[in-house]
Amino acid sequence: MMQIAVMGYGTIGSGVVEVLEINRERIAKKTGQEIGVKYILDLREFPGDPYEEQIVHDFSVIEKDEDVCLVVEAMGGVNPAYAFVKACLESGKHVVTSNKALVAAHGTELLQIARDRNLNFLFEASVGGGIPLIRPLTQSLAGEEILEICGILNGTTNYILTKMDQEGQDFETALKKAQELGYAERNPEADVEGYDTCRKIAILTALATEREVNFEEVYTEGITRITDTDFQYAARLKTSIRLLGVSRMDGERVSVFVCPVMVQADHPLYAVSDVYNGVVVRGRTVGTIMFYGSGAGKLPTANAVVSDIVEIAGHLSDHIPFGWSAKKQALTPVEEQNFSYFIRFAGQAAEKFADVEAVFAGARLIELEGKDEFAVITGRMSEARCRKLAAAFPDILQTIRCF
Amino acid sequence: MMQIAVMGYGTIGSGVVEVLEINRERIAKKTGQEIGVKYILDLREFPGDPYEEQIVHDFSVIEKDEDVCLVVEAMGGVNPAYAFVKACLESGKHVVTSNKALVAAHGTELLQIARDRNLNFLFEASVGGGIPLIRPLTQSLAGEEILEICGILNGTTNYILTKMDQEGQDFETALKKAQELGYAERNPEADVEGYDTCRKIAILTALATEREVNFEEVYTEGITRITDTDFQYAARLKTSIRLLGVSRMDGERVSVFVCPVMVQADHPLYAVSDVYNGVVVRGRTVGTIMFYGSGAGKLPTANAVVSDIVEIAGHLSDHIPFGWSAKKQALTPVEEQNFSYFIRFAGQAAEKFADVEAVFAGARLIELEGKDEFAVITGRMSEARCRKLAAAFPDILQTIRCF
Repeated sequence: MMQIAVMGYGTIGSGVVEVLEINRERIAKKTGQEIGVKYILDLREFPGDPYEEQIVHDFSVIEKDEDVCLVVEAMGGVNPAYAFVKACLESGKHVVTSNKALVAAHGTELLQIARDRNLNFLFEASVGGGIPLIRPLTQSLAGEEILEICGILNGTTNYILTKMDQEGQDFETALKKAQELGYAERNPEADVEGYDTCRKIAILTALATEREVNFEEVYTEGITRITDTDFQYAARLKTSIRLLGVSRMDGERVSVFVCPVMVQADHPLYAVSDVYNGVVVRGRTVGTIMFYGSGAGKLPTANAVVSDIVEIAGHLSDHIPFGWSAKKQALTPVEEQNFSYFIRFAGQAAEKFADVEAVFAGARLIELEGKDEFAVITGRMSEARCRKLAAAFPDILQTIRCF
Repeated sequence: MMQIAVMGYGTIGSGVVEVLEINRERIAKKTGQEIGVKYILDLREFPGDPYEEQIVHDFSVIEKDEDVCLVVEAMGGVNPAYAFVKACLESGKHVVTSNKALVAAHGTELLQIARDRNLNFLFEASVGGGIPLIRPLTQSLAGEEILEICGILNGTTNYILTKMDQEGQDFETALKKAQELGYAERNPEADVEGYDTCRKIAILTALATEREVNFEEVYTEGITRITDTDFQYAARLKTSIRLLGVSRMDGERVSVFVCPVMVQADHPLYAVSDVYNGVVVRGRTVGTIMFYGSGAGKLPTANAVVSDIVEIAGHLSDHIPFGWSAKKQALTPVEEQNFSYFIRFAGQAAEKFADVEAVFAGARLIELEGKDEFAVITGRMSEARCRKLAAAFPDILQTIRCF
């Protein structure tokens, strides 16, 4: 019997206990032993819960119990998760987490402690929920030169954008619907401002480059300024608008950004709708591959946590080479990154397009009937150049980068 | 230095040597040692090739060299690949293969020899080319109850069907184009008759159930009878037609089949076009996930072979629990499987649809203008029942199962 503890008995934590229960026999067969949940750490009581007896309120009970060889951190947030996880590793316990905020902020240090102590610190569930993503990226593509990672990494915003696209809803209406369905939190900032996607693309980039990526340096723009009018243009262009986290390797530097992107219909991510996540990985020899699935949800995410537990069960006394070093990855500033742009201007094209075209050479005009505005798609240029050219037009209504 | 041998210096074999070369430094860093190609077995000479000196014509040179700890089989076909792979394992060498014919026919025995001798026999490249598929299925989903696997597993037929769909070509024209581009072989039987897909879905099913699946028992129907008229109806219905390999777990038995299927636009595989492959896996707790990428091609497939080599490099003295036992998996005969059907009838709907509806209760009529025929979509019923009902109509032109 392998004894584990689960910290946090919310959605993910209780999901982990449930998946361990549902798949008990199969897991025992795979790992050669039963996995027992000895403690569940939570501040609350759970009277009547089948695991009521396992609930503890004091972290030190887990930390001090030498029977517990693995701890699942499913509390979320950086504090006190960071202190607890660090203490677990320092007391010789393997750790599995679903917490992208923790991994993005302290992954380098926690991975190093795990390495030094011949333990494992795994976090498959932190990106892409139930989609097997981190393990294929680090194991199946071990040795491969990753050229690009491009993903829809946040189900909440993808649901909102899908509703805006398919039903013509405005942002506020779609957000409200997402909140009613429990897809968005009451305070949706982390999702809609792109902060969640930012941490996830930072983690994937760090795994691909094997260097530390400071998520605070990643250019991040959310979807709160996307309107139903933008989607009317997108429909006309047979494109859609998605919140993407993107990482492109340019030699020693990496261009990483999070922002709404106008995506062509032939892009593999175009078809990823609703709360689904999709991640496209382009490698030098493997070409383009995509992973798709439920990016969130109790059981899918818990399944990813359990897959890490099962892997560690086969490596209880050795460290699986994994993760990134403390060496810092240089990022390309967004000003030096290149895009083509969808730009909306107030006023009539008949009067103003000539001026726009004189500045944005080769810009393609797009008009919607009956609107006192028009839009263009520009050629490819640096962000700095686009901003400089755009400064000549005080009547710009919107700018969205295009793929 | 880890010494390996490559058997077969055709597309895949030379691709493996190339990927090992391209990713040399990264692989050495991952595995902690260089990987050297000591021998390449091929009947031909390769004058001027950088690996000319490594070419051997006699298998026993490889078999007897104790320096060689791993052999890549990239010859294709069952013979002599089977005898050579078995001899490699019996002389204590790990084996990696891309050969689905070999794995489908002799996987059970070869896996058992590997297990008995504490070796590894891996075959990531045998299904889905470069897509990480077998490793996620067996490792990331270890312990998960797989409910369904449904895949576009053959790039050649998917290319042909995409051309028929998008350009209105007939089967012969699309096949000829595929042959010109090198996507289809001069004798395209293994692809277009579904034999290749059959072996691949048999392998995936065996991995999911951990039991032997006899591919000869899998109901297999190719795409040679699919016509441009079928695609006209498909377009009307906003569906497409794809060659699928499907495996559905029904308790102790599994429904496995390979056939052209009319796929709805909201199915994740609908968007998988051209030579791409896509595999949808549905698990009890993980929900629906999809893997997508180049299902064939020199470097993508070679990349998958190399990922197996890298994995084995970390397990040179231990067997990674993997594969299926000799216990036979019972399959549900196709007659007992349930589908709804697209059926085309000769003649005018005005005269004949009433008769059809009297037999296929609830059938939905679809007509194309200016044709002396019509089609219906039936309700869901067993294959046996459909065949029995259809026997009353000698004027049936086509039957395609629907998802």
